[in-house]
Amino acid sequence: MPNSFGHLFRITTWGESHGPGIGVVIDGCPPLLPISAEEIQAELDRRRPGQSEITTPRKEADTVEILSGVYEGKTTGTPIALLVRNTDQRSSAYNEMKAAFRPSHADFTYQTKFGVRDPNGGGRSSARETIGRVAAGAIARKILAHAGGVEVRAFVTRIHDIAAPAGALVKFPTLAEVEASPVRCPHPATAAAMVERIKAVRSDGDSVGGVIECRVRNVPVGLGEPVFDRLEADLGKALLSLPACKGFEVGSGFAGTKLTGSQHNDPFYPEPTASGPPRIRTRSNHSGGVQGGISNGEPILLRAAFKPTATILIEQETVDQAGNATTYKARGRHDPCVLPRAVPIVEAMIALVLIDHHLRQRGQNG
Amino acid sequence: MPNSFGHLFRITTWGESHGPGIGVVIDGCPPLLPISAEEIQAELDRRRPGQSEITTPRKEADTVEILSGVYEGKTTGTPIALLVRNTDQRSSAYNEMKAAFRPSHADFTYQTKFGVRDPNGGGRSSARETIGRVAAGAIARKILAHAGGVEVRAFVTRIHDIAAPAGALVKFPTLAEVEASPVRCPHPATAAAMVERIKAVRSDGDSVGGVIECRVRNVPVGLGEPVFDRLEADLGKALLSLPACKGFEVGSGFAGTKLTGSQHNDPFYPEPTASGPPRIRTRSNHSGGVQGGISNGEPILLRAAFKPTATILIEQETVDQAGNATTYKARGRHDPCVLPRAVPIVEAMIALVLIDHHLRQRGQNG
Amino acid sequence: MPNSFGHLFRITTWGESHGPGIGVVIDGCPPLLPISAEEIQAELDRRRPGQSEITTPRKEADTVEILSGVYEGKTTGTPIALLVRNTDQRSSAYNEMKAAFRPSHADFTYQTKFGVRDPNGGGRSSARETIGRVAAGAIARKILAHAGGVEVRAFVTRIHDIAAPAGALVKFPTLAEVEASPVRCPHPATAAAMVERIKAVRSDGDSVGGVIECRVRNVPVGLGEPVFDRLEADLGKALLSLPACKGFEVGSGFAGTKLTGSQHNDPFYPEPTASGPPRIRTRSNHSGGVQGGISNGEPILLRAAFKPTATILIEQETVDQAGNATTYKARGRHDPCVLPRAVPIVEAMIALVLIDHHLRQRGQNG
Amino acid sequence: MPNSFGHLFRITTWGESHGPGIGVVIDGCPPLLPISAEEIQAELDRRRPGQSEITTPRKEADTVEILSGVYEGKTTGTPIALLVRNTDQRSSAYNEMKAAFRPSHADFTYQTKFGVRDPNGGGRSSARETIGRVAAGAIARKILAHAGGVEVRAFVTRIHDIAAPAGALVKFPTLAEVEASPVRCPHPATAAAMVERIKAVRSDGDSVGGVIECRVRNVPVGLGEPVFDRLEADLGKALLSLPACKGFEVGSGFAGTKLTGSQHNDPFYPEPTASGPPRIRTRSNHSGGVQGGISNGEPILLRAAFKPTATILIEQETVDQAGNATTYKARGRHDPCVLPRAVPIVEAMIALVLIDHHLRQRGQNG
Repeated sequence: MPNSFGHLFRITTWGESHGPGIGVVIDGCPPLLPISAEEIQAELDRRRPGQSEITTPRKEADTVEILSGVYEGKTTGTPIALLVRNTDQRSSAYNEMKAAFRPSHADFTYQTKFGVRDPNGGGRSSARETIGRVAAGAIARKILAHAGGVEVRAFVTRIHDIAAPAGALVKFPTLAEVEASPVRCPHPATAAAMVERIKAVRSDGDSVGGVIECRVRNVPVGLGEPVFDRLEADLGKALLSLPACKGFEVGSGFAGTKLTGSQHNDPFYPEPTASGPPRIRTRSNHSGGVQGGISNGEPILLRAAFKPTATILIEQETVDQAGNATTYKARGRHDPCVLPRAVPIVEAMIALVLIDHHLRQRGQNG
Repeated sequence: MPNSFGHLFRITTWGESHGPGIGVVIDGCPPLLPISAEEIQAELDRRRPGQSEITTPRKEADTVEILSGVYEGKTTGTPIALLVRNTDQRSSAYNEMKAAFRPSHADFTYQTKFGVRDPNGGGRSSARETIGRVAAGAIARKILAHAGGVEVRAFVTRIHDIAAPAGALVKFPTLAEVEASPVRCPHPATAAAMVERIKAVRSDGDSVGGVIECRVRNVPVGLGEPVFDRLEADLGKALLSLPACKGFEVGSGFAGTKLTGSQHNDPFYPEPTASGPPRIRTRSNHSGGVQGGISNGEPILLRAAFKPTATILIEQETVDQAGNATTYKARGRHDPCVLPRAVPIVEAMIALVLIDHHLRQRGQNG
Repeated sequence: MPNSFGHLFRITTWGESHGPGIGVVIDGCPPLLPISAEEIQAELDRRRPGQSEITTPRKEADTVEILSGVYEGKTTGTPIALLVRNTDQRSSAYNEMKAAFRPSHADFTYQTKFGVRDPNGGGRSSARETIGRVAAGAIARKILAHAGGVEVRAFVTRIHDIAAPAGALVKFPTLAEVEASPVRCPHPATAAAMVERIKAVRSDGDSVGGVIECRVRNVPVGLGEPVFDRLEADLGKALLSLPACKGFEVGSGFAGTKLTGSQHNDPFYPEPTASGPPRIRTRSNHSGGVQGGISNGEPILLRAAFKPTATILIEQETVDQAGNATTYKARGRHDPCVLPRAVPIVEAMIALVLIDHHLRQRGQNG
Repeated sequence: MPNSFGHLFRITTWGESHGPGIGVVIDGCPPLLPISAEEIQAELDRRRPGQSEITTPRKEADTVEILSGVYEGKTTGTPIALLVRNTDQRSSAYNEMKAAFRPSHADFTYQTKFGVRDPNGGGRSSARETIGRVAAGAIARKILAHAGGVEVRAFVTRIHDIAAPAGALVKFPTLAEVEASPVRCPHPATAAAMVERIKAVRSDGDSVGGVIECRVRNVPVGLGEPVFDRLEADLGKALLSLPACKGFEVGSGFAGTKLTGSQHNDPFYPEPTASGPPRIRTRSNHSGGVQGGISNGEPILLRAAFKPTATILIEQETVDQAGNATTYKARGRHDPCVLPRAVPIVEAMIALVLIDHHLRQRGQNG
């Protein structure tokens, strides 16, 4: 189960960075959803290495094959298996990983926990594992779109200390606005500065981190299951299960703890509707769209912190597998900043949580 | 399953604030652990209302009864059921809750999701639900203590804008240091200022939030299951499932995203041991004790943000169940700040995650 | 999780035969279902000891208390906790159990697995554990009745070698017909012979087993999830999890393996309906209402084998806890045949499986 | 989750009969187990079509590819993905399936439940789905062999009305004895008669069913988790989740219900061991190796009933998808009896249950 996520819409991912391939099995996808390999491929292409000047030049087509669960262009309700073959396997480039535990990587903990690890490209701990998440997320997002037009949009708000100015990103950005820059920050001036910062640290052999924000709109009231499967708890777990994620906030987050209750509470008001009863809205959204663990119909607002890439081309103190002091300096092709490529991954994880809770809500209270 | 938490050490909580009682069933507790009602009661007493001048004066003895799973003072491997009867049920004090949705509470979302709710004291969404978590956590903590002396210690580091000075809380605080102040901040001067702030906002009918830090020491290497059940993901979910929690960080968290990789990486070094091979340590601990989703043997470092209490004695804009605009002002007995009483709850949740992963590690890789 | 059953309608049972009590927590019950303690009590009374001349004279009122999840007579969607206090605790009568492992009981396996056991009345392995199942089943049955009038009826078809004559039990028996005899066989002449047989073996200090059949009518098409959670697989697990159950059949079962395919296949035909399209029926029902793991709308037909009660008042060869050869002869109050009291337990388990699959079907394909 | 099985050793199968392929993901396999594609292939070859004169002549090499989780010939503790490409896809042969619901197949229930189905070769309901189970079972069996030499052996005891004579199969048969006949009955004279019977019904276009027995030896005491995950309950679910399985028995099964308790109870006795304390054994084994839901160290004894193959070359009454009466007669290549090929599938399922409980026992009580 450690490689499965979700309850009614459950994905199971498998695969190592330099093994034969990477894949995912999706169990619980409702039948009769139109889906094509092209739609899944479009999301994988957003995640793919080598897509811009600020990502790793590793060449991977990341071409997806649908192995099951789809008949004549529609899902059948049976498990959907998706396969992406690895093509750019350069094991030799990673030989030095065998000799030393890379600092702030998973080498030491995997070796100690399992007594063995696949050293090639990080094996299972590689971010290539997220291919399966993104592929499954593409399907989840399509179901969400069919279920009332739920839209998930993530974007980069800060790289290192370069952040979009306060108030610059108030409205829900379009996909085009996010994709306009390779750094996926929808504020062009900030995006340009971020790209320069990433290039600068890369030329030093160093790396940077930052913050991704995710917003979801057109969310129905009622997603989330108290008390342990609160929506924010499952959203938090989803993002904290991503490599390099070190923090998560919903709504007002850490900053909100500096307000008083009278400042922080979100007043309710009735919003008239064209027909039927008024819709109950909140004037502010410090809650981030979730109250009592359940979506309240306001936009969901999330932020996640991603640490600077652990792989740097700078010599560092470490130990080898025998426990002797040594040094390690990475070679080869790496992302100096994971955030741009993490944007579609964040969207995929959020979509997976929402579709699972959508099905649970339908089952338990429908 | 929404009211269950954990896989091999699984708790299921039940109960409403003003119903007959609150309880928990623990499934998967190993046999032959010595445990007494008194040990569980000690943790419940730390969570109990009315324990200090800055918590709600609601009177609840919160006396626990062990209903099963323990024979002659030891666990038997069968489910442990724990029951706490509610005694101070003042339903009449909550009648106004029926009329209006309290802002930033669960009233609106529960009513909409379930079509019904128990309005007395918030029903299931009340923080009284956490009694079951704390009771189960007391048992989890005892097993952890037996399993290599794992110690979990939470404490308050900030209330509103009053924070312990940088460097003041470097060492692992003792339980006595934490319990020395009703606000559970182990830095006495800061604690005193926090108490004053809480009293001040209470006199205004207002409330405050803040940040709780949790540290765990003597953690074995190997807890956590890639890729979805990473230790930090499960720890994050555990805390984000608590009422009022809006954010979670591990290790360097959000602040760490302002470092470069060369600053942030934790260098490994061999620490000589009295006998046997050197122990592999890290010089810094930006990772917060977790690498690749697996504990690396360094102290686990976590922080959680808790929003200001939603219940305030100030009139607020809201709507009633029929959707009409109205106002709401709480009456009665409430905590102006949840953090002091949340400290043992945080410890319980962390202990529950760790013991579950301890058993999983033993099963899967033992 | 070993003490939980179900996915979306999940029960967790706890309690030992001679501890403070027995109980169950039901997680996932839909909201707004009218339910009263009296309705649950009615099913518990059918299971209760001492209800007739052929069951154990142990006196237990088995009075149920609803501790949570019900507000003003209706479920709220939160966990329902039910408690039955044990009243007739005669630990002294069981002291001899400590000295010897009772043959064909759980004493030896529990002691070896857990290193400890509660010897009083069998502790957790006692059939008193099924109280929680029956209580939860009463709620499941009520939901099923609301969901299209699904009816679950079990009855005894054979005790020892006394069986109802072929063709005698073709139609769906009424509850009154089943309850007319203490042995719960709806064929009066057979029932009378069964009662005599049970009295006869009891007078010898011996015991007998037999077969219970269960039928379900008004089942919608579509319950059951291929490939592992096939309806018959979950129904089988449900009954095989009962004490003393050694076999399970669906539809034609073991006897059907003596037919050829042309004899065994169930031909489909269109049954005209008053309005709308014809209903698709089968002429025979060797499938037992399940095809491809999914209910096909025909009555579900099941049978379960229950071994003779292991507790007999006859001296038997055994060993003590130290491994020495000894003998054991039970004293006290026991059922010479478990089947009559197992009838409501079987019904409860079947109802629990069906309601879980009903909710899953609604979530995944609704 | 409906396509997943197991808790700590969890398999997820996917794939349709005539889609691109069939596969399985195994999550929870302990690290450092030596495993090769050849070992898995050997079990698949036992299940493969076209292996003898009494099975379907469909040609499938069923060649397995290991896609992940194995490094330098050993498992790494990460998910093991196995893929078998379908090669003999004759969709046209199945076109008639679109027109009519095949009697006693899954056509009608899948179509009604999901609103769609892949008609080619039964799609997901095809027995080809069991390829993933057998592949995973090969790994499970290897772990069991390493864990104390646990051996799982299934064989055919009855085909139609041809059964091995009483007492003929008392001892644990060798693999060679089982494999000596294409029908996999280790009693040669009976096997020969079974082969003749299968040929005879095939020449009539008809089919037959029968009974498979499975025995497991060298089982440790302690596998199985009361109260719902009793060993026999999980074993029963495992086999009842197989296509065509209509019944399950453990130990004395249905026949045992005709004994009295004094005949049925298994007396304990101390068996001297070369060194150390005596081993506690039972003189008879009506319990079938399981008491109180937990293995007692005696051989596990199981039987499963498999109905006659639903696919027959005889015209049958049925309805088409529009609900009109019609007839259906299968064409093409089919097994007139599923039992010979089901033998390795039964072994795989039993092994999967045992390894899962082995890991659970190690985690919870280790």
